[in-house]
Amino acid sequence: MATVTETASRLDLYRSLARQLRADSIRCSTAAGSGHPTSSLSAADLMAVLLAGHYHYDFVHPEDLANDHLIFSKGHASPLVYAMFRAAGAIDDEELMTFRKLGSRLEGHPTPVLPWVDVATGSLGQGLPIAMGVALAGKRLLRAPYHVWVLVGDSETAEGSVWEGLDLGGHESLENCTPIFDINRLGQRGPTELEWNTDAYRARIASFGWDTLVIDGHDLDEIDDAFGTARAARRPTAIVARTIKGKGVSFIEDKEGWHGKALDPEQARKALAEIGDEPSRTFAVAKPPAWRPDPQKTPAKVQLKTYSEPLATRKAYGEALAALGAARADVVVLDAEVSNSTHAEDFKKTAPDRFFEMYIAEQKMISAAVGMQVVGFVPFASTFAAFLTRAYDFIRMAAISRADIRLSGSHAGVSIGEDGPSQMALEDLAMMRAVHGSTVLYPCDANQAAKLVVAMADLRGISYIRTTREKTPIVYPADAEFPIGGSRVVRGGGADDRVTVIAGGITVHESVKAADALAKEGIKIRVIDAYSVKPIDARGIADALKVTGGRLVVVEDHWVEGGIGDAVLAGLAEIGVSPTRYQHLAVRAMPGSGKPAELLEAAGIAARDIVEAAKALLG
Amino acid sequence: MATVTETASRLDLYRSLARQLRADSIRCSTAAGSGHPTSSLSAADLMAVLLAGHYHYDFVHPEDLANDHLIFSKGHASPLVYAMFRAAGAIDDEELMTFRKLGSRLEGHPTPVLPWVDVATGSLGQGLPIAMGVALAGKRLLRAPYHVWVLVGDSETAEGSVWEGLDLGGHESLENCTPIFDINRLGQRGPTELEWNTDAYRARIASFGWDTLVIDGHDLDEIDDAFGTARAARRPTAIVARTIKGKGVSFIEDKEGWHGKALDPEQARKALAEIGDEPSRTFAVAKPPAWRPDPQKTPAKVQLKTYSEPLATRKAYGEALAALGAARADVVVLDAEVSNSTHAEDFKKTAPDRFFEMYIAEQKMISAAVGMQVVGFVPFASTFAAFLTRAYDFIRMAAISRADIRLSGSHAGVSIGEDGPSQMALEDLAMMRAVHGSTVLYPCDANQAAKLVVAMADLRGISYIRTTREKTPIVYPADAEFPIGGSRVVRGGGADDRVTVIAGGITVHESVKAADALAKEGIKIRVIDAYSVKPIDARGIADALKVTGGRLVVVEDHWVEGGIGDAVLAGLAEIGVSPTRYQHLAVRAMPGSGKPAELLEAAGIAARDIVEAAKALLG
Repeated sequence: MATVTETASRLDLYRSLARQLRADSIRCSTAAGSGHPTSSLSAADLMAVLLAGHYHYDFVHPEDLANDHLIFSKGHASPLVYAMFRAAGAIDDEELMTFRKLGSRLEGHPTPVLPWVDVATGSLGQGLPIAMGVALAGKRLLRAPYHVWVLVGDSETAEGSVWEGLDLGGHESLENCTPIFDINRLGQRGPTELEWNTDAYRARIASFGWDTLVIDGHDLDEIDDAFGTARAARRPTAIVARTIKGKGVSFIEDKEGWHGKALDPEQARKALAEIGDEPSRTFAVAKPPAWRPDPQKTPAKVQLKTYSEPLATRKAYGEALAALGAARADVVVLDAEVSNSTHAEDFKKTAPDRFFEMYIAEQKMISAAVGMQVVGFVPFASTFAAFLTRAYDFIRMAAISRADIRLSGSHAGVSIGEDGPSQMALEDLAMMRAVHGSTVLYPCDANQAAKLVVAMADLRGISYIRTTREKTPIVYPADAEFPIGGSRVVRGGGADDRVTVIAGGITVHESVKAADALAKEGIKIRVIDAYSVKPIDARGIADALKVTGGRLVVVEDHWVEGGIGDAVLAGLAEIGVSPTRYQHLAVRAMPGSGKPAELLEAAGIAARDIVEAAKALLG
Repeated sequence: MATVTETASRLDLYRSLARQLRADSIRCSTAAGSGHPTSSLSAADLMAVLLAGHYHYDFVHPEDLANDHLIFSKGHASPLVYAMFRAAGAIDDEELMTFRKLGSRLEGHPTPVLPWVDVATGSLGQGLPIAMGVALAGKRLLRAPYHVWVLVGDSETAEGSVWEGLDLGGHESLENCTPIFDINRLGQRGPTELEWNTDAYRARIASFGWDTLVIDGHDLDEIDDAFGTARAARRPTAIVARTIKGKGVSFIEDKEGWHGKALDPEQARKALAEIGDEPSRTFAVAKPPAWRPDPQKTPAKVQLKTYSEPLATRKAYGEALAALGAARADVVVLDAEVSNSTHAEDFKKTAPDRFFEMYIAEQKMISAAVGMQVVGFVPFASTFAAFLTRAYDFIRMAAISRADIRLSGSHAGVSIGEDGPSQMALEDLAMMRAVHGSTVLYPCDANQAAKLVVAMADLRGISYIRTTREKTPIVYPADAEFPIGGSRVVRGGGADDRVTVIAGGITVHESVKAADALAKEGIKIRVIDAYSVKPIDARGIADALKVTGGRLVVVEDHWVEGGIGDAVLAGLAEIGVSPTRYQHLAVRAMPGSGKPAELLEAAGIAARDIVEAAKALLG
């Protein structure tokens, strides 16, 4: 037990650090002329106690897997987290003053451009579920000593994803994660829905499986106790801290109209006088314990199945994932309660300890995947491709987080059949292409799908594989290779090809049928499988166009916009090539239910439509 | 109070209807060879009591605004809702047996192709928040007698959007909406997270502001009481019904492996024998009370402000919305707690009773908008364009719902400046283009923005306007018109233009600067403002290309993929035109923070870059 003197000096230390965090938050945002000082001030006491009393982190070795994690889910409080880095000696005052300036690592909202930041935040409601992913990996995979702290704004509890994250923590009993809710009553444009109703917050959070400590977020002693309790707890424990926005600067405390607004220099002078600004000090931060994870087994060669009979690419995905999981211990799989449809269940059978059921919560699934890659795992996350739209903001932010995650979307296009349009992904290629640095893959047979899955494990950034519900014939021998950015000629290839047809996935098979039908009439066409939608093989396609007089048909099971057609035209234009005659077969009317073959025909993307299109270009 | 005999005969009626709903759910799914009979059976007793005892609906006049609403949030239980329509006499047995067949109105998941279906469901977690929107409009706008019933699956409570919806209902005290949770313990691939833990459901739902009745979902008397209580309640009241998946057919009751699986004909025969199949009857459904909403004032002419000084298009959006709201009583506005940034707050000042604060919950915002248009309102919903990605699944489904909703996304592109990439929409054009039947607009000045906002009020489907954070100069006179699908030449236009530059929003101004700079060097270019990104004015652009020798620059504040560049190339290709030389200036590297002008330059989409690109095409 601490003596009275020890307690007093500890509280003095916290007070001194809190003062500095407040002053630095104001100084850097005033220098920038923008930013969120008031949102920083409400949490300054919380973060002072955390940094000086409870955070175990080696700022010189951010790669140390024993380090605690701190995620600012309320990323707009970036002045505060940068002030913490300054206080820890990780950055100097000069860098702190570059906040929000061109080229600075101190962006408006935190990103992993800084080595002490795990993930980008700033789209609210994401930091919390990502933190759960980091904690889940720490508990179930690494058995690491680290604790995950996540600072959550009160406004962002309106996002359903916060409740998805809390559900994960409650369900998986993540006592190694402490969400700290900064209940400062004011959102961007006025009071939050629940204002200071901490009872309501407590009831909600508790109902999702958490012990909940309600504290005064400006009482350093209470904060200290709560953090100690939370870290030591054997059950998931959250902290609900009642705070005051702008705390410490009387003329902005609990005032509307001060969200996301820097103080002007004169206001800042007054504020700093009130806070009692002193030259910035460096404060000691406790190092994590000496700890290393169990060494991982050396990766084995992946033993892929090979295929000669028709099989759905989604099934090949699952089997390749299982093979990958058997060979590599760093691969983890998450699925949104459809693993018997996506076939992620095949991985679960091989490596049940590395399979994570996310239930029907796609935002949670992507967040958890992002969290797991923070500590070095190689996540694959799967659901119906249509339902990845649910997590688009999380995928977008994952790219800003420089996260390496792999996504699989099954049940692409109208070819799913009877289930109807709600289950048909018809915008997923557009969505995934428009993610920075993404790779978009779309296999047409099982051997190709398997190879692409293995390739994804080593890709950086966001990679996506689109799979098909229906069984499709085998097109490629098991030893064929499919480099990212490549394409394959599946019919034709000679100098007498007269039309180039570019297809992907299910439409490759329709194109093959069309080519065979046209061949009977003496018309040779070249069918190209654009399995790599991004990057697209513009050179390969351009070469084909040269042979076929610029005549081009693109056929895809996707809306007209943003898919293979757009990718091909843009890729060609980038290298100065255009088709001379072009037909784009894609889904143009809202589909209904029906058999897969009927729906391909109804959409005008079946073999007979390709035949007609080719003839029209020749006519 | 009902006599014993009356109660007995009422229960007999329910029992008879429940039997028929079960039998018809099995019959139609077996005929289809697919579908979700077990998910239908768990809710058959609930829906029998609702239809025969509590639902007020005139199936002959689905347009009657006094009608109750029933939304199957668990849309996969479509056999059950179709069986209800059959029982009500709305469809006949022959049509019931077309379930899931090509051309049938009875799709795999319900859509408003059927006049008694409000919205498409099938992407889980959406029906509940949409129902809240219908209820909100009923309570606060129409003061209608209708009650909104929503059948919710237990699996879908994993979606955060369910909690966003419950939060809305609790906050707005929507006692006119009754969510009925069908807790049948089994999801698609096995047990749900909470199985039959009705206490956990009750605690969660209650913590979001709801009175919660936990009942046996197969006890007709208990169900009857609960529905009566819920409809009469003065507080939001939810029903948590413990049910058995497959109830009524012993060999599939509470069995795993029976999700989304039709019984084969032999199994169906056994099942129907057990249920006691009888020829389908028609059951009386109570009509709604005679009621009409207060007549709306005749729309007045919209009195738009006109602009001559630089103004942000987001501000013009807000002011146009306010003018629209003053002129038309059917316009409603929703915002996700950023109305002082999107400037939706201007509407709030004019028509506070038609402004709805959705807090930071974009999924809830889109759902509520979809719900409000069900009963005839004209919703506009706004947030930062980047955060519309959060609701992409809801936007996608709104298109399947044939909903007419208008979205505004502010803070587009790198030109927002210091806040950094988390707040920059760089994929919104790609996302919105790939929505079926969407209209995508992107104004560059305040007069244009105002005109486009007014046009949106009368557009069908999903329309989207992208606005800019920064003030931009006025380009157009106040009397200029901007037809959807059009474009405007803002510089050049003569026969001696040598390069066509296509821009949108902020890059129009950069292009104008470039044109002026080039003019000084004697190089004339034609700058086209592609304010209508979808539909794109391919003919207008083709005409320009003819003059400028096919030389084309597209410059946009968006990722390379899916935006104006792709739209232009696809639009041209569709009419058989290609640029001969092409440069695409778009955002290719992850931006950081900085001043707007600095970030435009860093991204290579500033005036100087356009000058260089034009010269390169001429060189």
